[in-house]
Amino acid sequence: MIQTQAHAVFDAAGPFRRTEIERRELEPHDVLIDIKYAGICHSDIHTARGDWGPVEYPLVPGHEIAGVVSAVGSAVTRHAVGDRVGVGCMVDSCRECKPCRDGQEQYCQKGNTGTYGAVDRYGQLTQGGYSERIVVNEDFVVRIPDGIELDAAAPLLCAGITTYSPLRHWQAGPGRKVAVVGLGGLGHMAVKLAHAMGAEVTVLSQTLSKREDGLRLGAAHYYATSDPRTFEALAGSFDLILNTVSAAIDIDAYLSLLALDGTLVNVGAPAEPMTIHAFPLLLHRRSFAGSTIGGIAETQEMLDFCAEHRIAPEIELIAADRIDEAWERVLASDVRYRFVIDISTMGRE
Amino acid sequence: MIQTQAHAVFDAAGPFRRTEIERRELEPHDVLIDIKYAGICHSDIHTARGDWGPVEYPLVPGHEIAGVVSAVGSAVTRHAVGDRVGVGCMVDSCRECKPCRDGQEQYCQKGNTGTYGAVDRYGQLTQGGYSERIVVNEDFVVRIPDGIELDAAAPLLCAGITTYSPLRHWQAGPGRKVAVVGLGGLGHMAVKLAHAMGAEVTVLSQTLSKREDGLRLGAAHYYATSDPRTFEALAGSFDLILNTVSAAIDIDAYLSLLALDGTLVNVGAPAEPMTIHAFPLLLHRRSFAGSTIGGIAETQEMLDFCAEHRIAPEIELIAADRIDEAWERVLASDVRYRFVIDISTMGRE
Repeated sequence: MIQTQAHAVFDAAGPFRRTEIERRELEPHDVLIDIKYAGICHSDIHTARGDWGPVEYPLVPGHEIAGVVSAVGSAVTRHAVGDRVGVGCMVDSCRECKPCRDGQEQYCQKGNTGTYGAVDRYGQLTQGGYSERIVVNEDFVVRIPDGIELDAAAPLLCAGITTYSPLRHWQAGPGRKVAVVGLGGLGHMAVKLAHAMGAEVTVLSQTLSKREDGLRLGAAHYYATSDPRTFEALAGSFDLILNTVSAAIDIDAYLSLLALDGTLVNVGAPAEPMTIHAFPLLLHRRSFAGSTIGGIAETQEMLDFCAEHRIAPEIELIAADRIDEAWERVLASDVRYRFVIDISTMGRE
Repeated sequence: MIQTQAHAVFDAAGPFRRTEIERRELEPHDVLIDIKYAGICHSDIHTARGDWGPVEYPLVPGHEIAGVVSAVGSAVTRHAVGDRVGVGCMVDSCRECKPCRDGQEQYCQKGNTGTYGAVDRYGQLTQGGYSERIVVNEDFVVRIPDGIELDAAAPLLCAGITTYSPLRHWQAGPGRKVAVVGLGGLGHMAVKLAHAMGAEVTVLSQTLSKREDGLRLGAAHYYATSDPRTFEALAGSFDLILNTVSAAIDIDAYLSLLALDGTLVNVGAPAEPMTIHAFPLLLHRRSFAGSTIGGIAETQEMLDFCAEHRIAPEIELIAADRIDEAWERVLASDVRYRFVIDISTMGRE
């Protein structure tokens, strides 16, 4: 086994403690990655605190991983030592079902293998990117284009693909009006991506406090959802609304903002139920949908798109001993717009 | 004004009483129709009893109208005296907004003019098809093909188009698995239409009591939703589920039956809110959508499709003095599968 340093939580209450974990020896198609940066995603917190179901501890979160290949298995063809690479929310899937064969491993019918907190095909509990090294099958490792800095690349592996995939699927582009609900880690990427795709972007945020940022990131319009006039003014406006907020929102109110055949897509996953009425759906053939991350090929496409359009997340780099503090700030929406852990600080404590 | 006999309710409690109402004199583009048959739709009851909002009484329901043209205005080109024609749920729209220009008058941005209970462009309260004659602008009158009997044609104007339109929009056809929830007036038409389009049809009904009918109408499979094993056996199965039940159902449970990219479409409109969780949507990029009737051109297309495929609703013909009783039976789901009023019985009481 390969030993590696990591930061883990040992129960739902946290806090993080440094620990040593084991990665498997390289199988023929495995890649060993020296992790350089790991993004902090709101879902790390949901998972670690048991909001989404029971958790086996200790848990090493982290599914926004950017690093450099330091060794490869005997049969690896996709990556070579020294390559700049990334790993996102999944590290394996069945590879046999229709979604897997179609490159939509995120919707694997047997369930994809999560980067942490899942049991892999070797019977081992997976552990995530808040660590120095990770072993991943080459098919679930993507190439980070030269034009993207490694630290900024990390959040693209979740926040980037989670917003890119539904924007593509529901055809954000020229002539389409797209609203983004929430200007956090996912929301700020959604604004940049939708704008780069050519859509007319509106931010719907609780207050106007981040308005200048929103416009700078590419939004044409910015409205406060705490103001009831917003819902009157924008009724029937949007072809697509991407809801990045992971708390239950007033679905009916947001549906009323959709034009004919418009879709409200949840990429956040609140644990609480939401209430919905049939009429707002019926009246303009609207849809309420969900989307989760993206396939591996689409993740590569997203990274290439970001390099081509010079898009990167706005990040705040932190040392490994500040993860607890960063989590508290994520919960308080006090981050512009993504925390990234500098893994080189992990051995120094 | 043109006087005509009608059956109306005078308050939310009913019952029906015979009355005389006025239709406008023919405008240049108007058609006078001698109504022969009028279908009874569950939404007649919802509307008349105030479930969907305040109602002005007396109210003459009926938006499944089949009859014969008996006079035309000076500028009418689409229809001639003696033509067999139908009128559905709407009798006008703004004709200027994008949906109207695109032939989707049902989604008129200013709201289409309902066949009853709406105020038309002349300032008059519209009154529906439970009556002997009606005056309608020619653009909202469709031709009933020779291959369809007039009595059976009536329910196509609502139950037919309400199911045909979403089946077409969400591409029911060969290689697609379609489930129909509820085998009532709408549901039995959905089964016939989806089967004729080439889809593999499954009926999801509370019990197996109508199983033989369902299979005869074109379903390949029939399951009882009262049996929890149904939801296990069919998990992830369907590309499209058409929910024709106008009561609140367990949305999450039905969403779990959808395959990747599947859509659950409500065509019934329960007044009560429904509860929905984000996860069933996210996990397989599923959608929950709504659809209401169809455009005028699409209604004509549906009638032609029914004639070509020899599809007609299964009806129980009743005399006008039995409407109250029929309504009670509709509420008790005791009809196979649509009541149609023989308007010739109206003057005889």
